[in-house]
Amino acid sequence: MRATREGVAEKVVLPGPASKELGESIARRLSLPLLPYEVKVFPDGETRLRFEEKVSGKTVLIVQSTYPPPDQNLFQLLLASHRLSQEGAKVHAVVPYLAYARQDKEFVAGEVVSLGVVSHLLRSGGVSRLTTVDIHSAEGLSLFAIPVYSVSAIPSLVSYVKKNFKLNQPVVVAPDFGGSKRSEAFASLLQAMFVQLSKKRDRVTGQVKVESSKLEVKGRDVLIVDDIISTGGTVRAAGIVLREAGAARVIAVCSHPLLVDDAMEKLGSEGIRDVVGTNTVPSEVSKVDVSEAIAEHLKTVTE
Amino acid sequence: MRATREGVAEKVVLPGPASKELGESIARRLSLPLLPYEVKVFPDGETRLRFEEKVSGKTVLIVQSTYPPPDQNLFQLLLASHRLSQEGAKVHAVVPYLAYARQDKEFVAGEVVSLGVVSHLLRSGGVSRLTTVDIHSAEGLSLFAIPVYSVSAIPSLVSYVKKNFKLNQPVVVAPDFGGSKRSEAFASLLQAMFVQLSKKRDRVTGQVKVESSKLEVKGRDVLIVDDIISTGGTVRAAGIVLREAGAARVIAVCSHPLLVDDAMEKLGSEGIRDVVGTNTVPSEVSKVDVSEAIAEHLKTVTE
Repeated sequence: MRATREGVAEKVVLPGPASKELGESIARRLSLPLLPYEVKVFPDGETRLRFEEKVSGKTVLIVQSTYPPPDQNLFQLLLASHRLSQEGAKVHAVVPYLAYARQDKEFVAGEVVSLGVVSHLLRSGGVSRLTTVDIHSAEGLSLFAIPVYSVSAIPSLVSYVKKNFKLNQPVVVAPDFGGSKRSEAFASLLQAMFVQLSKKRDRVTGQVKVESSKLEVKGRDVLIVDDIISTGGTVRAAGIVLREAGAARVIAVCSHPLLVDDAMEKLGSEGIRDVVGTNTVPSEVSKVDVSEAIAEHLKTVTE
Repeated sequence: MRATREGVAEKVVLPGPASKELGESIARRLSLPLLPYEVKVFPDGETRLRFEEKVSGKTVLIVQSTYPPPDQNLFQLLLASHRLSQEGAKVHAVVPYLAYARQDKEFVAGEVVSLGVVSHLLRSGGVSRLTTVDIHSAEGLSLFAIPVYSVSAIPSLVSYVKKNFKLNQPVVVAPDFGGSKRSEAFASLLQAMFVQLSKKRDRVTGQVKVESSKLEVKGRDVLIVDDIISTGGTVRAAGIVLREAGAARVIAVCSHPLLVDDAMEKLGSEGIRDVVGTNTVPSEVSKVDVSEAIAEHLKTVTE
């Protein structure tokens, strides 16, 4: 795999500071060499990067997730991509968790479409192709002027759940409309019933209210499947409704476990003790490895 | 001043989240209206911005300092400038403290010139003119492809020191070569003796060592003048040397008091109890207001 075929650029992987292990794992799976670099974050929060090898003519896969602090991780990606592209490399950014993906349109007139700005900065910063995992909504992809691909972590999450939980008449619940296709795919792969809750979020305060409907979950195990768990507000609100409806066990499953502040405690206090996420974001519940799914996708890309 | 002369774009001031008071003060001094906006930083660190007014055809002065966390403050500036420039405004960024200004060249081969990346992103993000205060080195200005101006805070700092300290045979000390012109200007305005120390910093670890020479400071008041106090390491090292040389009182003066972590305690423990900075960075020692110096400069700019 390491041999360079004629006309095909040599590829190297840069495991960014935010995704060192994941990047190294992707490189191993693709049998690609790593690009060595130095990184230091100074006490004032500025990042210094240094590259020891020349990359002109190569394709560099920069693996750098943009979980909190989102702007720092994003800026580290931009520092690297700008430099490497200026040197003549083609930069393919692999951003397992893509920050700002929830601000992908003007929900209220006058709102800055932050994902559009991220898209613009990545392209301007030398990124010519983007791969992410379970982007918040497909509409977000349309904001990119470069080729962009969202890898699904759903099959990996389903495999993990099947292997690690003995489920009793499982029901899969989507806590809002936005992620329902993803949750429905999860239910389908798990061969479980699917239920759609409706959620209302105040876009300014972030307050979440889940609306209950007739839920046939009495005595059954329920999996709340969402793309992102941030403060846990949405999952917690869904959990309360589900427990009231008589669910036996409530398990939260997500692609991106941001778990900001005391999210885990908040979930635990509502009886949601099992939380499953992937390693797009490192956390105590990042039990599902997405490196295989990402590597399999990358094999299909001709740079 | 508020009337629009023919051919001159109407100007408004956006006091960014990091420089609300300073921006409002600059607007008052220029008799310019403020651009209203909503800002929210979500628990995961993402910023949401919303503008209520149209700005097409106007010049917007975005006042946003980029002190720590530098990438967050920088990204907020980029969110605003990208949006407003897309709407047809001309964006003049007023960045009182400019992050990454110390990484303005490859000190070691292979280093990313971070300030060059910042410069590129600002321009690409719609900024067409930049004003900052006491940029770390004049070379940094050459990295910008847009007009850029560095306002001096030295006269304001000297006025403050003259008014608030009764100095005995003052000596002004520059703790390293980089900032010596600035410190020399300070000494000249204060009509004080000037001494240059030499400093060695390990660019990777950040460790600072100040080299002592024959210092004639016995019984005299010494002002250490530098552009940035970050962790306080440089000033503290200079302070130790100066106290050993018999200085009576040691005062630290800077343009940008970042004062990261326990910088104030670190300085205090070496007998440097008086620290004076400007409000380019809000802090307990930001006693000198730069809004007048910035406003006076902005009056001279024909957008």
